[in-house]
Amino acid sequence: MTSRDYYFDSYAHFGIHEEMLKDEVRTLTYRNAMYHNKHVFKDKIVLDVGSGTGILCMFAANAGAKHVYGIECSSISEYSEKIIKSNHLHNVITIFKGKVEEVELPVEKVDIIISEWMGYCLFYESMLNTVIFARDKWLKPGGLMFPDRATLYVVAIEDRQYKDFKIHWWENVYGFDMSCIRNVAIKEPLVDMVDSKQVVTNACLLKEVDIYNREARGPVLHLSLPSADPPQRLRPRPGHLFQHRVHQVSQEDRLLHSSRCCHHTLEADSVLPRGLFDCQEGRGDFWQYRCQAK
Amino acid sequence: MTSRDYYFDSYAHFGIHEEMLKDEVRTLTYRNAMYHNKHVFKDKIVLDVGSGTGILCMFAANAGAKHVYGIECSSISEYSEKIIKSNHLHNVITIFKGKVEEVELPVEKVDIIISEWMGYCLFYESMLNTVIFARDKWLKPGGLMFPDRATLYVVAIEDRQYKDFKIHWWENVYGFDMSCIRNVAIKEPLVDMVDSKQVVTNACLLKEVDIYNREARGPVLHLSLPSADPPQRLRPRPGHLFQHRVHQVSQEDRLLHSSRCCHHTLEADSVLPRGLFDCQEGRGDFWQYRCQAK
Repeated sequence: MTSRDYYFDSYAHFGIHEEMLKDEVRTLTYRNAMYHNKHVFKDKIVLDVGSGTGILCMFAANAGAKHVYGIECSSISEYSEKIIKSNHLHNVITIFKGKVEEVELPVEKVDIIISEWMGYCLFYESMLNTVIFARDKWLKPGGLMFPDRATLYVVAIEDRQYKDFKIHWWENVYGFDMSCIRNVAIKEPLVDMVDSKQVVTNACLLKEVDIYNREARGPVLHLSLPSADPPQRLRPRPGHLFQHRVHQVSQEDRLLHSSRCCHHTLEADSVLPRGLFDCQEGRGDFWQYRCQAK
Repeated sequence: MTSRDYYFDSYAHFGIHEEMLKDEVRTLTYRNAMYHNKHVFKDKIVLDVGSGTGILCMFAANAGAKHVYGIECSSISEYSEKIIKSNHLHNVITIFKGKVEEVELPVEKVDIIISEWMGYCLFYESMLNTVIFARDKWLKPGGLMFPDRATLYVVAIEDRQYKDFKIHWWENVYGFDMSCIRNVAIKEPLVDMVDSKQVVTNACLLKEVDIYNREARGPVLHLSLPSADPPQRLRPRPGHLFQHRVHQVSQEDRLLHSSRCCHHTLEADSVLPRGLFDCQEGRGDFWQYRCQAK
């Protein structure tokens, strides 16, 4: 494949899967949810929506599933089939390459649907609707969704170093004033890791989705996040942007009432120019944000 | 502009210019070449091929040029005009937006051509031919090129950490064998900074280009590097790849015979699978390379 192919099939490149797999909080939470609930998975038919490298399928298989079906529309599916075979799980796992909306499964219904559908800013990958589609089509009455609840929070952080290096830097570039680029740079969304020590406000609940809810689709679309545009970049929209937003997916094991909680610390952020100013009080530079979820 | 626009006009995004400007070795070398040779620039007509943010135009203006023309085909030209105006140099600098091959300059000939045409692996941006075109069309007999000579070296480095984290990592992903992706990952080219302490061989001269040479075009094309494909990624080609190659552009000031030498440490690298093996001698992991410039 060439870089041009990857542009139109960005999930075909292993790099994006490497990044997801190396997010240990995320991956280990899925693994724990399955390995610590083997009685739930034992002899069940499991469907993985967007199976990628096949990691969740293999977790489900090792947790005792009778059979796992994975659906993956990008070319990474070919590698996942090799991986599954290398790990001697090809009798338990079957991967279907194609769109969830078009694939025909060899079973009428499944007991459990697993999916890692969360993207930047929780909803960015626009994949939740596909998971809901799969739920409505294949999930048995009383079947289980993993995860079953997702919440999006917004917090503010301070980051003077970033601001100096990426924003104020344009004010004096080898002695020249390039402030007009500063004004563009400050509007540029950024997806980055932040240290928890940088958080300077409480977390504000922005959106909660019950994946079992038949109306789950509605409130998500009301967030008006950009739809799936191939490059992994959010576009700023005046009046609906946040500075250094951290989203957290809380996963609660309803079955076992273990109240295990995973903080999924991917961040997506944008600057709302009108709401951005320096405040000299308190802890140095403080970037205020305004959130207007519509 | 949206991310889709940037795909087709990648130089329009300020980020790539920020990266270039923040390469202080590169930018300061250009500045020094002009500021330390003001007697050469005084009252001269200067052309900047691919003027970007206008930084080299402004250096030339400050070095005493009578007038500087900048040609830039991407939309960053609009910002460069604002920048030039903000710095009160709009009477000395004129930016033309368009392709070098199509732009009409208001002068017949120029005294000096400056250009920052070097890309990853020196020739990657495929811009040298455009500079040569500009030279043949506009440079006065006896006129000057900045830079006037470019050399590409190849060296080998060792980087066990990278190898463990990006290559061997696939052999055991949460207990699963994903080696088939390792085999793809190892072929992936990488552009990265390396520490000079990682270099474990002498530098091997691969290609030298005299920019005044009328045949400069020839040997460059013989390197068979990929032509300008929008994404900033080299594609691996069996038999013509290097592991952790560092290229260095040596700039020698011919005029002043100062023998100032700038090491331009952008790196481009790819793995030649046939030539890649672990050698336990000497300093730990050692990745051998084979270079076959054709």
